[in-house]
Amino acid sequence: MKGFLAYQNEENMGLFTDLYELTMCASYFDNKKFEPATFDVFIRRLPPGRSYFMFAGLEQVLGYLESVKFTKEHTAYLRKQGFDEKFLAYLQDFKFTGDVFAVPEGSIVFPNEPLIRVTAPIIEAQLIETFLLNTVNLQTMIATKASRVVYAAKGKSVVEFGLRREHGIDAGMKVARSSYIAGCQGTSNVLAGMAYEIPVYGTMAHSFIMSYEKELDAFRAFANTFPAKATLLIDTYDDKAGAQKATIIAKELEKKGMKLIGVRLDSGDLADTSKAVRILLDAKDLGYVIIFASGDLDEYKISELQNTGAKIDAFGVGTKMGTSADYPYIDVIYKLCETMNGKGEFCPIMKLSKNKNTLPGRKQVYRVTDAKGNYINDIIALANEQSKGEPLLVKVMENGKLTYNLPSLNDIRTSAAANIAKLPAKYKQLTSHSQYPVELSQALEDLVANLKRKITENEIIADQPEKQ
Amino acid sequence: MKGFLAYQNEENMGLFTDLYELTMCASYFDNKKFEPATFDVFIRRLPPGRSYFMFAGLEQVLGYLESVKFTKEHTAYLRKQGFDEKFLAYLQDFKFTGDVFAVPEGSIVFPNEPLIRVTAPIIEAQLIETFLLNTVNLQTMIATKASRVVYAAKGKSVVEFGLRREHGIDAGMKVARSSYIAGCQGTSNVLAGMAYEIPVYGTMAHSFIMSYEKELDAFRAFANTFPAKATLLIDTYDDKAGAQKATIIAKELEKKGMKLIGVRLDSGDLADTSKAVRILLDAKDLGYVIIFASGDLDEYKISELQNTGAKIDAFGVGTKMGTSADYPYIDVIYKLCETMNGKGEFCPIMKLSKNKNTLPGRKQVYRVTDAKGNYINDIIALANEQSKGEPLLVKVMENGKLTYNLPSLNDIRTSAAANIAKLPAKYKQLTSHSQYPVELSQALEDLVANLKRKITENEIIADQPEKQ
Repeated sequence: MKGFLAYQNEENMGLFTDLYELTMCASYFDNKKFEPATFDVFIRRLPPGRSYFMFAGLEQVLGYLESVKFTKEHTAYLRKQGFDEKFLAYLQDFKFTGDVFAVPEGSIVFPNEPLIRVTAPIIEAQLIETFLLNTVNLQTMIATKASRVVYAAKGKSVVEFGLRREHGIDAGMKVARSSYIAGCQGTSNVLAGMAYEIPVYGTMAHSFIMSYEKELDAFRAFANTFPAKATLLIDTYDDKAGAQKATIIAKELEKKGMKLIGVRLDSGDLADTSKAVRILLDAKDLGYVIIFASGDLDEYKISELQNTGAKIDAFGVGTKMGTSADYPYIDVIYKLCETMNGKGEFCPIMKLSKNKNTLPGRKQVYRVTDAKGNYINDIIALANEQSKGEPLLVKVMENGKLTYNLPSLNDIRTSAAANIAKLPAKYKQLTSHSQYPVELSQALEDLVANLKRKITENEIIADQPEKQ
Repeated sequence: MKGFLAYQNEENMGLFTDLYELTMCASYFDNKKFEPATFDVFIRRLPPGRSYFMFAGLEQVLGYLESVKFTKEHTAYLRKQGFDEKFLAYLQDFKFTGDVFAVPEGSIVFPNEPLIRVTAPIIEAQLIETFLLNTVNLQTMIATKASRVVYAAKGKSVVEFGLRREHGIDAGMKVARSSYIAGCQGTSNVLAGMAYEIPVYGTMAHSFIMSYEKELDAFRAFANTFPAKATLLIDTYDDKAGAQKATIIAKELEKKGMKLIGVRLDSGDLADTSKAVRILLDAKDLGYVIIFASGDLDEYKISELQNTGAKIDAFGVGTKMGTSADYPYIDVIYKLCETMNGKGEFCPIMKLSKNKNTLPGRKQVYRVTDAKGNYINDIIALANEQSKGEPLLVKVMENGKLTYNLPSLNDIRTSAAANIAKLPAKYKQLTSHSQYPVELSQALEDLVANLKRKITENEIIADQPEKQ
């Protein structure tokens, strides 16, 4: 047995790639194509009913770009796959040396906006595609989903509880990270708590209750171990009977000068049950005991619970957030937008496939806001243009070296909250899509029209664009 | 920066757990509950329209159980979370010492059947829950999904292409592994290819074509580098024009005594285009050039393509298989079924929540087959009962030591193919569910009825079951 996490470390991420990146690069190498090119990471479209994305994953992308390499074991493996020696020698010395611009983590972004812009020798820029997409897909998908859940909770706490159904180890870690960015209070994942300094939360499972002959004994044993931080799961047999027993424990704790933190509901009609349990607790002067609810929650169910006046103080949200279950991927892609011609000039290029056009040239995104900072519209422009609005893409790497002060996770979380607050409410509706205005600058529009004409006429890439 | 895969190694998996496992265990420890207990991993229900699961992930579960531990850094972190010193000292020496039974990877299984049965001191058995569920969820979900895709392809090759949208690093690796188990031909993921010895496949991206002024130049450059293994992506500008150019390259290769492997379509109406491209290739005597299709495929689209007579020889299947997009989780759970009473006797127990009952006692699953080995029905029985049929659960670990010869990945794949062949066709339909018969033995039925009565009457766990 090689180990159940065999090869999953930073040393080996060079091969964490689709094979075609390597075959393309081998052909670039073989055909002596070393000129720089520019690629954009962007998302093609919104999932149904959503109006924005929250960008996340940049820190891990930069960590990868700083360290990506190919070991002797990698090149030995690639040799067996038929790659030739000269290319393998190139890989052995591989280092990423490009320039990278990106929007900060926690930014609110929209389809077609460049999120990461990479300019590097085309072999380097191509090789990194798969890792970038994998990382941005997972974290941006989850930050976006979690920001919707947090929005639905309207200020009540949301804790990320999905570890058991998230897709493997890295997903377990990155879902905790990106849902924390989006405003979750914490996670159940202890390793993520340690690795990222995220607050960790947890209560007890039904098995704990069932391992005692009587529910009350289980409650008492737990309160005995955690007198200052016990939340009791009350629905193993009957939720109201469970709540009654929780009041007994609460009173016992009061005699010791302690307070029961809360009770947890994990099944049944959470709205009705929470109301009944609240009355029951309040009748015993236990207004301070919070009601924590979990079980198949997402933004839609939380919103429904809020609308029916459920007496729930905090939500544990698992599977449906941790897998983004209603849309478990985003259409994030990495597209070539600029190459260099034989004269050493950068030439904007675009793809003109059926319904899959791309935006040519090196670009910047400008955000126009009102006097209070609220978002009005975005403009995608060429990078060397002037435009109204604030530029979103900042330089994060130059010649392969980090030029960006990585913010702390708490700083990212704080700025994410500020960003989402500046997004007008209509774009945050849970079930109806509103189109946030994203325009192209006149120069970019002209470039697109011009290239379309050239490609259609000649089926070649324009090498003398009128504007750039 | 701590590293983008910080703490994701076997050394640290002790903390890859929901906090509540640790709080429960701390309370067990505090209350001196060290008796053995038995837990079952099982799946509560099938996703809509599906009729079976293919089990995967056991090898990683066993690797974890053999190595799980708590480091000084872990206990230092837990100390800050308020865990007491005696429990931390216990964790410092933690080793899993239990007995484990499991069904082999690649088995066809059904709801409520125990897939992994753990008997261990209750603290140990509880602590491992989250990792087991996370691992079985991902791999069983993907093996099941991939087996449907392979079934739809009716003997044509399927290659796993989803790395960029799979949920992080571990998912990228484990999706390649479990879809290979289920019959995929290989993966695009090079690291998975190296780690698991899975065949790797890849062609080229649109960016490669676009980086050349003319599509034909791009094709020629690629064929130059890989004369014996070139597949050309022909839909960057116009698929039929692309196919024409591919025939030129094929003829150039023929002059060198080489053969073009194939062309790839990644957009548009794959059925119509593939037919047109086939005619075009055949007209140039290029019957040997295969047509490879990709782009938003899953079992439903592949089935539709097959039904409309698409001329596709192999399928690249990405996002929708790699995220199990139509149902990105399975309802896999881990439930206590047996504890030990004060007299040292094992007592079967069950959970009786709203629609969430569990099966009590230590159990075995027997599969009844016809003379040809085809599956007829399963019987869930008590472990010490005799039953007709073949037992599915085998001992894999005793006192924390592996007692099982881990099969090679290719052996698992071979037995998975044999297993799926023995499942009658009606259970393999893609859109309609057929209920495979899973019965309870009479003794188990009686035990359930008896415990239900006792719980309802007394709301306690029966400590003197009539039968076991």
